[in-house]
Amino acid sequence: MNYKLLLKINGKLLMLEAAFMLLPVITALIYRESSGLSFLPVIALLLIIGIPLSRLNPRRTEMYAREGLAIVATSWILMSLAGALPFYISREIPVFIDAFFETASGFTTTGASILDDVETLSHSMLFWRSFTHWVGGMGVLVFILAIAPLAGSYTVNLMRAESPGPQVEKVTPKIGSTAKLLYLIYAFLTLLQFVLMCAGGMPVFDSLLTAFGTAGTGGFGVKNSSIADYSTYIQSVITVFMLLYGVNFSIYYMILLKKIKPVFKNEELRFYLGIVAVAIILITANVANRFETLYEAFHHSAFQVAAIISTTGFTTVNFNDWPSFSKSILVLLMLFGASAGSTGGGMKISRILIMLKFIGIEAVRLIHPRKVNTISIDGHKVEYEMLKNIFLYFLCYAGLLALSVLIISLDGYSFTTNVTATISALSNIGPYVDAINDAWNFSSFSLISKLVLTIDMIFGRLEILPVLILFVPDTWRRK
Amino acid sequence: MNYKLLLKINGKLLMLEAAFMLLPVITALIYRESSGLSFLPVIALLLIIGIPLSRLNPRRTEMYAREGLAIVATSWILMSLAGALPFYISREIPVFIDAFFETASGFTTTGASILDDVETLSHSMLFWRSFTHWVGGMGVLVFILAIAPLAGSYTVNLMRAESPGPQVEKVTPKIGSTAKLLYLIYAFLTLLQFVLMCAGGMPVFDSLLTAFGTAGTGGFGVKNSSIADYSTYIQSVITVFMLLYGVNFSIYYMILLKKIKPVFKNEELRFYLGIVAVAIILITANVANRFETLYEAFHHSAFQVAAIISTTGFTTVNFNDWPSFSKSILVLLMLFGASAGSTGGGMKISRILIMLKFIGIEAVRLIHPRKVNTISIDGHKVEYEMLKNIFLYFLCYAGLLALSVLIISLDGYSFTTNVTATISALSNIGPYVDAINDAWNFSSFSLISKLVLTIDMIFGRLEILPVLILFVPDTWRRK
Repeated sequence: MNYKLLLKINGKLLMLEAAFMLLPVITALIYRESSGLSFLPVIALLLIIGIPLSRLNPRRTEMYAREGLAIVATSWILMSLAGALPFYISREIPVFIDAFFETASGFTTTGASILDDVETLSHSMLFWRSFTHWVGGMGVLVFILAIAPLAGSYTVNLMRAESPGPQVEKVTPKIGSTAKLLYLIYAFLTLLQFVLMCAGGMPVFDSLLTAFGTAGTGGFGVKNSSIADYSTYIQSVITVFMLLYGVNFSIYYMILLKKIKPVFKNEELRFYLGIVAVAIILITANVANRFETLYEAFHHSAFQVAAIISTTGFTTVNFNDWPSFSKSILVLLMLFGASAGSTGGGMKISRILIMLKFIGIEAVRLIHPRKVNTISIDGHKVEYEMLKNIFLYFLCYAGLLALSVLIISLDGYSFTTNVTATISALSNIGPYVDAINDAWNFSSFSLISKLVLTIDMIFGRLEILPVLILFVPDTWRRK
Repeated sequence: MNYKLLLKINGKLLMLEAAFMLLPVITALIYRESSGLSFLPVIALLLIIGIPLSRLNPRRTEMYAREGLAIVATSWILMSLAGALPFYISREIPVFIDAFFETASGFTTTGASILDDVETLSHSMLFWRSFTHWVGGMGVLVFILAIAPLAGSYTVNLMRAESPGPQVEKVTPKIGSTAKLLYLIYAFLTLLQFVLMCAGGMPVFDSLLTAFGTAGTGGFGVKNSSIADYSTYIQSVITVFMLLYGVNFSIYYMILLKKIKPVFKNEELRFYLGIVAVAIILITANVANRFETLYEAFHHSAFQVAAIISTTGFTTVNFNDWPSFSKSILVLLMLFGASAGSTGGGMKISRILIMLKFIGIEAVRLIHPRKVNTISIDGHKVEYEMLKNIFLYFLCYAGLLALSVLIISLDGYSFTTNVTATISALSNIGPYVDAINDAWNFSSFSLISKLVLTIDMIFGRLEILPVLILFVPDTWRRK
């Protein structure tokens, strides 16, 4: 391991986090809240540690796959620990494990909360909580790449380790420009949603934080009722944007370049939209008799499908009351998740698509063993290396799910709660089925369970492999 | 597809099933029951269809993988349909789908029942029901191979398709002798258990049927209370034998040859026994306060662990009352299942072991991408082809699980019930968690759900791939 490089980039990250914390301080000034003071010692601490680390001069600056993975994993853990400090210092979340859970849930864009009453938080804490979603959605190291190009080669390995999906497409030849472009599209969409919601009469503060929560596909809201109390117009805007953030951002780049034909032919996009359409139709039919009009049933079905498949996790109704069939569809969508290269979590539509193609091709090979067929997506061959990494991901996902359910079951809740709460953490969704209370919050879990779920959220956001290598002793060997 | 070969072997199978049906007829004569008459028209029908088919002379007799898979899949479906007829004709199970469910559950050694009251069945029907377990456990086509060598080459493909586990070891060079040897060991163990139970004061009829149910790792009992009302001695005998039937039978062959050292070194056996030991210790500790003595807690924990990991599914206590932690362990064991080459179901210990090794090796390769490591079990390299088939199996298992849960959830039961009932069918276990009633029977599911679960049981017993190829159009193309 190239320790100096790892420490240097983690130093930069801490400085960036200190800068980000100025925003809630400003919020506190606007709302004249004393809670803003809790950020100041943390900012000082982050700078004291971050500045010297960021000035380290590693002899070698090549970022191999190993360095990329380890840097991403360590920095996400560090960032969540540091980000939890203001909640803890202000006593707004008095138990540190709880604050760590809430912050990791923010950065990983899970949106699961241990708070019984969100509305008691100060504006500055609410801002920080939702802002972590916005930063975590597109990735903090991608942000560093976008604003300050790193010295050294192969920095694509950093982006590859942080970005969702089985592969990363560099939409432009330079990794720095790709990162910048992604953040520009991201910021534009966020702004657009903010304006559309303000125009619908949503308070400015609520609009901004809800826009952050939607953009990162996070799901933290400013109300205990999530999105239920806003108007149908606001809910519809959020539905559309949740679906938009579940799309691979390279699609938007293609649209910018006016390459419309490949957009329509994009296999992952078609499959994603197909799943969304079928799920909405099935759930609407299944819950129709619970709403006054068919449109209302469609409206809430569409909202919930968008919220779950994009892994945002906002809610407008308590879907725990919905029939088993609808809940089963939602659990399946929890596992699927959004598209690769989106801000959403889960296993990713492209992985599911590749696996379905694998089944089709291998079923034929059982009959014609000598036939050599290759899997391809959008005309590109899926290499064996990528297939293996997808299998590794699936197996680790299954293993983590089993192990976590086992530990969490010590709390004594039902099997459904244990399984769906773990899937919710691993797929970065937020709510779960068969809730122990209506607010879908995790406050009643034991501290051990919260810690396990926190680790699951980080594993889930980074798609397991970066965190996995932290446990391989070879990772830490000096060369 | 070599249709003549397929029909010929299916013909032999029907004749064999007719012969098997003489046993319940004899049972009916002993107990002077009129229910024996229901078997006679079925025997006649099977012979009328079976004899001409078995006389077909296919031009080519080579049994390629394709033929092996298709013959096994079609014959298991046919055998279950035919085996259901006596139940239906006698009106002891008046709905055909129910009779089909019960018979498939028997042959696939699942042991799930749609009967509310088993004790009202006549002796001949009870005998037939339990005898299907014994035939299904080791495999009906393996039986044919054992008694009447088939003309033609590559008949190992037939055995490979029917036998559990990722690969089949021919313990002797000739496939016929291997089949014969396996059935001899199987019959010896069955007899031994029968004698030990009779000696413990269990009625002869109960002992015989329970021995069948244990040998096939099936789980059909003769009482509504399963094994709960028998003595601790009887329960202990059953515990030991359930564990024995979950072991790869080639281990017993090695013991016969006095090759003791490789037995102790066998990786799957060590892993299997390790899992059993850990599960028993954890569950005993978790349920200790529910029993009067620690020994009693150990006794019932051991029984339940053995019953689930061997996929037999007998019960001595209602483990639905056990704490979540114990139930989660049992669900995990449901997925794992028994050893390859045993009579048990589930994913098989060797598949789990290979996948764990895959994770370990691939995690290291994330750091050293150029390192070439191979997976090996007992010193034998696991080839890429086998790895791919294991992945295919896992993916299909997951897909079938998801699809079945979705359909079954239309009945409106809880998520836990839907998931564990489906795993129970796919892994050929029998009981499930969060039961809708205490007897763990499937009578309250809709006919559609029963049909789905029946198909799952057959998919599960044949480890998916043989049944999967029935859906590939190429399978049915004449050459």
